[in-house]
Amino acid sequence: MYEKYWQQMGDKTTVVIPGWQYMSYFSDISNICWFLEPEFAKQVVRLHKVVGNAVTDGRHIVVGTGSSQLYLAALFALSPSDASEPISVVSQAPYYSSYPSMTDCLKSGLYKWAGEAQNFSKEGPYIELVTSPNNPDGTARHSVVNRNKGILLHDLAYYWPQYTPISSPADHELMLFTVSKSTGHAGMRIGWAIVKDKEVAKRMTKFVELNTIGVSKDSQIRAAKVLKAVSDPYEHVDDSEVGETFFDFSYHSMAERWKLLREAVEHSGMFSLPKFPPAFCTFFNQVSEPRPAFAWLKCENDIEDCETFLRGHKILTRGGKHFGVGPMYVRVSMLDRDENFIRFVKRLSTIRV
Amino acid sequence: MYEKYWQQMGDKTTVVIPGWQYMSYFSDISNICWFLEPEFAKQVVRLHKVVGNAVTDGRHIVVGTGSSQLYLAALFALSPSDASEPISVVSQAPYYSSYPSMTDCLKSGLYKWAGEAQNFSKEGPYIELVTSPNNPDGTARHSVVNRNKGILLHDLAYYWPQYTPISSPADHELMLFTVSKSTGHAGMRIGWAIVKDKEVAKRMTKFVELNTIGVSKDSQIRAAKVLKAVSDPYEHVDDSEVGETFFDFSYHSMAERWKLLREAVEHSGMFSLPKFPPAFCTFFNQVSEPRPAFAWLKCENDIEDCETFLRGHKILTRGGKHFGVGPMYVRVSMLDRDENFIRFVKRLSTIRV
Repeated sequence: MYEKYWQQMGDKTTVVIPGWQYMSYFSDISNICWFLEPEFAKQVVRLHKVVGNAVTDGRHIVVGTGSSQLYLAALFALSPSDASEPISVVSQAPYYSSYPSMTDCLKSGLYKWAGEAQNFSKEGPYIELVTSPNNPDGTARHSVVNRNKGILLHDLAYYWPQYTPISSPADHELMLFTVSKSTGHAGMRIGWAIVKDKEVAKRMTKFVELNTIGVSKDSQIRAAKVLKAVSDPYEHVDDSEVGETFFDFSYHSMAERWKLLREAVEHSGMFSLPKFPPAFCTFFNQVSEPRPAFAWLKCENDIEDCETFLRGHKILTRGGKHFGVGPMYVRVSMLDRDENFIRFVKRLSTIRV
Repeated sequence: MYEKYWQQMGDKTTVVIPGWQYMSYFSDISNICWFLEPEFAKQVVRLHKVVGNAVTDGRHIVVGTGSSQLYLAALFALSPSDASEPISVVSQAPYYSSYPSMTDCLKSGLYKWAGEAQNFSKEGPYIELVTSPNNPDGTARHSVVNRNKGILLHDLAYYWPQYTPISSPADHELMLFTVSKSTGHAGMRIGWAIVKDKEVAKRMTKFVELNTIGVSKDSQIRAAKVLKAVSDPYEHVDDSEVGETFFDFSYHSMAERWKLLREAVEHSGMFSLPKFPPAFCTFFNQVSEPRPAFAWLKCENDIEDCETFLRGHKILTRGGKHFGVGPMYVRVSMLDRDENFIRFVKRLSTIRV
C-alpha cells in the first residue's frame, strides 16, 4: 500500500551511498547505543514530536534489526540474570503469532513464553507484553495482569495516526516501534526502542552487540531520510513541492479499505468484524474510528475452521489458533498492494453459505 | 585500511536506492532463504569462483546480519532439538573472544559453550568451531577433537588472499564468510553461510526469521555492488578503467604493515610474534607468507599482563584471557587507518625494558 506513496514522492527519499562510507562498526561511541546513527536518532525523535505519539525527552533510543530483534533484546534486558528459573512472558490473547516461537526459539534459561496473560496466576516476577493497537485484532490494549513484580513491555508498532486515533504521547518504560509499520519499509529491517532506564538501554545494546554487532548503517541512513520526508511537510520545510502528506495519504487509504471491507462483509453475511469506538485524534484534530493494519475476521454460521474455509475461496489468511484463540477467527493483512486488496474484498463479498 | 581503496574507486560502488524500492520482507520466495537478494547471492558465488577459496556448486547460500547472526543460526540449526541437555560447543584456544559470550548470552537449552577443544572429553555429540585462519592468532586450523558425533562449523571470515595463501577451495559442511573482513564493510552487517545440507539451510533461515525477520535489503544490494566491483577486473569486465585490483591493494597493504610490525617488534626486543610457514597461493600464483588481520603479540621479559603493560604505553589491545589463554598475549588489529597503524608501530618500536 505504501509503495504507491513513495513512488509519488519520486527522488525525495532516494539515498546515495558511496562505497567508502559507513564502513565502520561504530556510529557514535559517546552514545550508550554506539551503533545508532545520529541522524536516524534525530529523525526518530522529530517524528514522534510531529505525531505526538510517544514521549522521547530524557529517553534512550536503541536501534534494532527490525523491532523483532528489539523484542528479544528487551527480554534479555528485562530478565533477571541470576534467577533460578526463566521469567514468564505473558500477553493477552489474541497475541502476535510470532511471539511464542520467538521467545522459546532457543529454549532460553532467562525467559519463557507462558501464554495468555488473563490466565496467568504464578507468583513472582513476570514480563507482560502489551501490543497496542493490538496485532491481530486492532484493539487498544492495557496491561491485564496488574500484579506486583510485573515488568511491562509495550509494542507500539501500530500506534500511528493512519491506524488509530492518537490520544496522547505514550509514556511507558520501554516502547517498541518499527519503520515496517510506520512507513511501510519492511525490507530495511529497522526498528527502534524508546527506553526510560539507562541500565535497560545498556543491556539491550549489549544484546544487539552479541546478536549482530550492531545494525545496518545503510538502512539506518535510508530510514532517516524516509522519516525526514514524512516530518518535513508538517514543519513546513520544503513547502515548495508538498504533495499529499504521508499521514493524509495513509489515513485515507486505510479508511477507504476499511469501508470496502465492511461493505464486503455485509454483502456476504458470512463474517463479522470487530467494532471500534471512535475517539479524538490529537494529530488529525478530529474524531475518528481505528483502521487497523489487520482485519480480524470471524466466520459466522457455524464454520469452525475459518482459515480452511477461506482457503477454499482462494483467500489466504492466518488462523486464530496461531494467535492463542479459536479457529473461527483469521487475520488478514490490510496493507497489500491495491490490486490484491481489491481482489480480496471482491472474493470475500461473494461468499455465500 | 580498506576505506582508502574504496575512495580511490570513486563512484564505482555508489548505490542509489529510491524510496519505493526494496520495501517488502521478501526477496525470492522460491529460494529456501526467502530474504536473500538474488543479485547478492550471484555476486557471492561469482567472487568465490574468482578467488577459488570456497566450493559453492550445489550449496545453499544463507545471508545474515553479519556472520555473527549466522554463527547463532548455525548453532540453532546444528543442535539436536530434542536433546535432554544442551550440546557442547568447543573451539581450540586461542579462540575469538566473543564466541563464549555469544553462545551463552541467553542460557540456551540447545547449546552451551564448553571451552577449549583440546581438553574436551565428554561423550556424545558436540559442535566444534574451526576458525581458519584463526582469530586471534592467524594460524591455519583444522578440527582437533576428531571423534564420532562431532559436528564441524567453519568460520572462514579471514580465508581471503590478502590474509593467507589460498591453498584450495574450502569444501566443508557449513562455512561462514562476511563482508566486514573480505572488503572492509563492517557497517553493512552482511555475512553469508555456504551450506551443504538443505535441512540445515532451512533451519538457519528459520532462525534469522525468528531473530530479525530477514536481513537489510539495502545492505545486501550495496554488498552486491561492492563484491561485483571486486570481481569485475579479474573477469575483464570494465577493462577501460581498471586501477589497482582490490586484492593487489589489500595484499600489498597487509604485507607492508606486517613488515613494519616485524621491524618494530625486532627494534623493541620486548615482544614476539607467531611465525607463519610460507605456502603456495593459487590466487596469486606464488608462494607467500600469511599476513593475518590481527597481530597476536606476546610480551617477553617476564611481563605477565601484556594488555596492561601496553596500555601504559598508550597502545590499546585485547588481552589473552579473553581468548582462552594467558595474559602474556594480546591481540592487535592490523586493519586500522594508516595514521593509527603507523602511530601504533612507532610506539611499539620504542618500548624498552
